[in-house]
Amino acid sequence: MNQTEVLSAPAVDTVRKTLAECRAATLPALRTVVEGLHPRLARISAYHLGWCRPDGTPADGRTGKMLRAALAVLAARAFGGSTASAVPGAVAAELVHNFSLLHDDLMDADELRRGRPTAWVVFGRGPAVLAGDALLIQALRVVTEVRGTAGQPAAGAMTSAVDAIIQGQAADLELDGCPVDEVDTDDYLAACAKTSGLLGGCLEVGAVLAHAPATAARMLRSAAWDLGVAWQIADDIENLWGDPAASGKDAYGDLRSGKRTYPVIAALRSETAAGSRLAARLSATETPAEAELAALARLVEEAGGRAAAERTARHYLDQALHTLSRAGGEAGPVDTLSALFRHVLARHEQWTTRVPTAPAPKGAAL
Amino acid sequence: MNQTEVLSAPAVDTVRKTLAECRAATLPALRTVVEGLHPRLARISAYHLGWCRPDGTPADGRTGKMLRAALAVLAARAFGGSTASAVPGAVAAELVHNFSLLHDDLMDADELRRGRPTAWVVFGRGPAVLAGDALLIQALRVVTEVRGTAGQPAAGAMTSAVDAIIQGQAADLELDGCPVDEVDTDDYLAACAKTSGLLGGCLEVGAVLAHAPATAARMLRSAAWDLGVAWQIADDIENLWGDPAASGKDAYGDLRSGKRTYPVIAALRSETAAGSRLAARLSATETPAEAELAALARLVEEAGGRAAAERTARHYLDQALHTLSRAGGEAGPVDTLSALFRHVLARHEQWTTRVPTAPAPKGAAL
Repeated sequence: MNQTEVLSAPAVDTVRKTLAECRAATLPALRTVVEGLHPRLARISAYHLGWCRPDGTPADGRTGKMLRAALAVLAARAFGGSTASAVPGAVAAELVHNFSLLHDDLMDADELRRGRPTAWVVFGRGPAVLAGDALLIQALRVVTEVRGTAGQPAAGAMTSAVDAIIQGQAADLELDGCPVDEVDTDDYLAACAKTSGLLGGCLEVGAVLAHAPATAARMLRSAAWDLGVAWQIADDIENLWGDPAASGKDAYGDLRSGKRTYPVIAALRSETAAGSRLAARLSATETPAEAELAALARLVEEAGGRAAAERTARHYLDQALHTLSRAGGEAGPVDTLSALFRHVLARHEQWTTRVPTAPAPKGAAL
Repeated sequence: MNQTEVLSAPAVDTVRKTLAECRAATLPALRTVVEGLHPRLARISAYHLGWCRPDGTPADGRTGKMLRAALAVLAARAFGGSTASAVPGAVAAELVHNFSLLHDDLMDADELRRGRPTAWVVFGRGPAVLAGDALLIQALRVVTEVRGTAGQPAAGAMTSAVDAIIQGQAADLELDGCPVDEVDTDDYLAACAKTSGLLGGCLEVGAVLAHAPATAARMLRSAAWDLGVAWQIADDIENLWGDPAASGKDAYGDLRSGKRTYPVIAALRSETAAGSRLAARLSATETPAEAELAALARLVEEAGGRAAAERTARHYLDQALHTLSRAGGEAGPVDTLSALFRHVLARHEQWTTRVPTAPAPKGAAL
């Protein structure tokens, strides 16, 4: 038995109930913040959050499950904090998450999110940038206004998290244009900060709001950081070999846009014949034709890129769970957090539940 | 004699020396922040700040005079604070100012700033947005890290200032598309927050860092807020009737882009024949031809828009100086602040030094 075994049905049930409960605790305060914005920015934000249509009429679609709010609340509970004490952190985390989505969709020229046109497509680039700015500053206002000794470290946790997201996004921009013979997994890990930075900030802010010891808060941040790396790599794996219907994303979208994902980088650095062929193809100026994408994915797998990615993602998830178990929180909430960590990666069960059988290619290890 | 008389030569000299001194005190810390960013974002920011060319080689051009840093430092000095104690506020103020310029240039599709291509033109929209995000979060990090009891109110002052800027920018976006028969000076004043919010934040953060009484900090914020309104209106006046060589901006640029500036709004609400003709022309779908712009400016003046704008700007400047004089700071720094307020508007001497002679048009008053 290992830590990343598949979740039991009761554990999945607990995770779902906890997510719903944390979401319910966070939503009213989040709504108050959004409704307090300038009406134009409130509309854009509410649309982006899935709460309304472009004209402002209520939407009946799916809204987010607010994973980040749950991380903040569970971290607080793990150190004796109440749900209410964690709400400013949970609200700030969700606001920061949506700030970064609004800006990233524009930066990446993504035109769809959860099957709907992205905010910049509907409302224009300028207003979408401004709405993102508004959510960011509200996030910081919410934590800055926390009274007592937890206020300053809570604000510090969130500013550090946003700083990390931005540095990660900058690293990601570098990665996109990086020549195939220069790109390395270190560059990839630097770009993971765009995801890991906020996940880390969620656990840290929750711990800090519960007055957890500083070491514990740092360990929780580190655990969530590793979870973010595993998640990012799992996303890459899914885009190449997953079921597009399950992920809701374009199959091979990353290959099409020339993204340097973990499996691709590992394949390029594998010193295999397949890796060399992949490098030659990706160095060519013309973009791969649709019909060629599946063959490219097979080439990545042949070069060991898939096995390396699965092994690395699994390593980071194991490390995240190990750090979490050593941070010293109360067993109940920590167990739920641990289940939540595994749940986040549950759609990738194929590699979280089996040891990869492919031989390890050279240069493609962690 | 009134408060807005022209500055004496020694007073101008004092203001210039103070600006240079505050700039010198702020610049090293500002450079440290920018150099600590991801290299790609550091390059964009340094270019935007006028420190380097697009390729990173040092620029020899003019860099900003850092008015906002000086406001923060002088406010601290007015309440017994040292220059060093105010530096985090001064650095944060300059970072926020440049965050907003980076995003606003993109939002307004401005292609030139101080005679150079704007950052989004040189580096692309996405990277320019990200660089703005980076400067904003660094601003908040700098004030959040202030130790002692001033930390939380300093962070609060800056988050409130950024909140105001964003709400003001949103109001400004509304103003641009507003039908001529609906637009009012109240809408204009709401949009002034994009300038006033930060000027207010500069004085407030300086005062707070010097542990000034809360009432005094609020009064300083209010004074700078009024200064911002006067400045905004003065900019409008200059664009219509000023010397483009002195301002460095396109003559009639506001008319060309259909901006609802204060003189135009006052003219539209004047209930004069000239105002009606202006309304008819601005409601037409075709944009004014170049040859028509001077005639439109004359129509605004004939409708009393210029006189109303001059009177209102003067009123706000007087009010700013009056509030400043009652906030209770030490005479020396307050006198310098007062001179700085007037200096900011000095290129508009024609109306800061004379009482307007045109009769007040109906509906165009404050």
